[in-house]
Amino acid sequence: MSKIILSVNSGSSSVKISVYSASLDQDPKELAETQIDGLTAPPPQLKYTRGSQLICKDKKLEETISSQNDAFKYMLDQLISDKDFSAINKKDDIAIVCHRVVHGGDYETPQIINEDTYHHLEALTDLAPLHNASALEIVKYLLKELPQAKNIAVFDSEFHQTIPEHIKTYPINQEIAKKNKLRKYGFHGISYSFITRSVAQFLGKKESETSLIILHLGSGASVCAVKDGKSWDTSMGLTPLAGLPGATRSGSVDPSLVFHYATNVGKLSPSSTESLHISRAEEILNKESGWKSLTGTTNFGAIASSDDPKMKLAFDIFVDRILGYVGSYYVSLHGKVDALVFAGGIGEKSDLLRKRVTDESSCLGFEIDGELNGRKIEDLVQEVGKREAKHRTLVCQTNEQFEMARVVAVDEKLFG
Amino acid sequence: MSKIILSVNSGSSSVKISVYSASLDQDPKELAETQIDGLTAPPPQLKYTRGSQLICKDKKLEETISSQNDAFKYMLDQLISDKDFSAINKKDDIAIVCHRVVHGGDYETPQIINEDTYHHLEALTDLAPLHNASALEIVKYLLKELPQAKNIAVFDSEFHQTIPEHIKTYPINQEIAKKNKLRKYGFHGISYSFITRSVAQFLGKKESETSLIILHLGSGASVCAVKDGKSWDTSMGLTPLAGLPGATRSGSVDPSLVFHYATNVGKLSPSSTESLHISRAEEILNKESGWKSLTGTTNFGAIASSDDPKMKLAFDIFVDRILGYVGSYYVSLHGKVDALVFAGGIGEKSDLLRKRVTDESSCLGFEIDGELNGRKIEDLVQEVGKREAKHRTLVCQTNEQFEMARVVAVDEKLFG
Repeated sequence: MSKIILSVNSGSSSVKISVYSASLDQDPKELAETQIDGLTAPPPQLKYTRGSQLICKDKKLEETISSQNDAFKYMLDQLISDKDFSAINKKDDIAIVCHRVVHGGDYETPQIINEDTYHHLEALTDLAPLHNASALEIVKYLLKELPQAKNIAVFDSEFHQTIPEHIKTYPINQEIAKKNKLRKYGFHGISYSFITRSVAQFLGKKESETSLIILHLGSGASVCAVKDGKSWDTSMGLTPLAGLPGATRSGSVDPSLVFHYATNVGKLSPSSTESLHISRAEEILNKESGWKSLTGTTNFGAIASSDDPKMKLAFDIFVDRILGYVGSYYVSLHGKVDALVFAGGIGEKSDLLRKRVTDESSCLGFEIDGELNGRKIEDLVQEVGKREAKHRTLVCQTNEQFEMARVVAVDEKLFG
Repeated sequence: MSKIILSVNSGSSSVKISVYSASLDQDPKELAETQIDGLTAPPPQLKYTRGSQLICKDKKLEETISSQNDAFKYMLDQLISDKDFSAINKKDDIAIVCHRVVHGGDYETPQIINEDTYHHLEALTDLAPLHNASALEIVKYLLKELPQAKNIAVFDSEFHQTIPEHIKTYPINQEIAKKNKLRKYGFHGISYSFITRSVAQFLGKKESETSLIILHLGSGASVCAVKDGKSWDTSMGLTPLAGLPGATRSGSVDPSLVFHYATNVGKLSPSSTESLHISRAEEILNKESGWKSLTGTTNFGAIASSDDPKMKLAFDIFVDRILGYVGSYYVSLHGKVDALVFAGGIGEKSDLLRKRVTDESSCLGFEIDGELNGRKIEDLVQEVGKREAKHRTLVCQTNEQFEMARVVAVDEKLFG
């Protein structure tokens, strides 16, 4: 029996909903996708695709949409009220809603959330207040307003459970580390899971025999070393702050830096709420840093193509930090790497970045093919490296919403 | 005219004084070396070598020696009162005292310190209170008690001034970064300078044509990428906290970790003084972490040779983080690497560590020679890699005291 699954992806300034029709053990079929962007830079803008038909794009909304939950409600109402979208005519038509939850703590599998288990997820918010809160707000809304729908949390940290002890352990007091659950978790796992499977298929290899260095590069950026189909290491850590810089995130910096940046950084930020504790330090490093702080823009495309010294500096910094992980993970995988894979908005769009990273790591055996790299990225997995190079270089169009729906559809306990 | 130069190296739990006779533009000649260890684990122990003669070793001292300055005074008195040491019979015999000062901020050259310029150095202590303070205490003592001697600060950060902009810039608000002088500085530079020159000589190459990955591994540990004789990148950052873990130092961890480790970590530590401001966070990450926190010991030799799971974990963590930098810097140097160089107490002594690091980076072309690696390290620079490997693997017995004296002896403005 087919069911309607919604996959909800709530980001720092956007919310995306994909609607799927799914049957057990089959690939979900996308019916519609709707997205509101610009929550932190009003007016919010709507994009809506029904089937293969683009209904609107960059449509400025006059409504007051000030939170991810507002955006979600707006799009849910729109899906229900769209007369031309027959899949959902009333709330009850929605069987399952999957939520991307960034920090899953020690959860090893996706979790069905009900009123009873909701507080378990809330407890995780302490570890990642900036990242989990908006998804939980939407879950809370749905538990109340769509009681018949099954809510499932899919965790961005889950893929990284296979990271070995010596890589995930921080060299700090282990009693405190265990008590406070301080270790490397890693994120973007839903994406890495999708990419690993897709690239293995593309290469005609078993997932369990595929080893990759994957660059998921967007306004949040990370790197993953995949060894024999499993996460071996990743650049993010206890929280998404560690590793590569992002649009507003510093990435790894000297851990004592923030104490020299401002006074009282350990104090709670004014944007904290009773249930949400955010230190000024975490706010500075997550929200007020990254290439926005260097250039004034979060638009990486503009940065990559500019000759302005500030833009060039931001580009060079990003390339340098990426190359550091490429080298590091190449050694960690003992050189057994089937492909270097670019993904995420920047990975898909910036041929300039792909060229620089690949050119500068040619000593490892990666080589860009100028012609292939210049082509539009249209396939799920597309070659951009020279075929005769020692290692292949690919682009993968990752799809977190599909991956969440798929994870649910292949698991009878979740699908029901 | 030859002069007596003292090189003072004040560490976290030890002070070393080397005595040289030096003439302008000539290599200084070591006359004696004296050292007190165990300042943080009493009783303090004395080692004293006069010429080539070992006078005492591990001699437990009954005196109360509770600070680096106490240790310095003790050893200075001993040098002056030793009837068999003719080079120094009275305070006035000492012409120059060089001090290793960890954090040199923007200083590009060694600085002669007098009552007037002393406060410039004190200001730097804000950036590195845990690291500069003990050296400055000794300088202060000498300015008062040996007014005829010239005090020269030699900075551990100086060698790293050549690090390019995109590597030394943190992706944070640049106005605040400039105002608060927040950037990568790097340390162990006196050692890296010594090693680069020594290895270039060993290889029969010009320094300006020598590129190396140098591992300075001791209770404080760092890595340096040397490109054409100059520092191109290094693992430590704004302070020595960033990068590799050490005996009691966490190294790079998620910058938000410490806020989940304990509450109020931004507050001043009880060990702060009126002039010395140390946050609890910096104390936790610098003094209460590292392999001591994992294993209970700071003795890396014991860790490397143990089968205890905790010891093995600490060893594996250290190897993993080192390999990360080897891979990262290999790419950053575009594979143009003359040698991988091990140095520092652990680099010189732990053939087990050298073997693991080299074996695990064999995909880059490093190969250990079992027989050479097993030999005692007696030469200034000694081969431990296979001669037929793509890149050479070496050990260098670094000598920071000699390097400080040499820097002064080759510079007429300093030597006078």
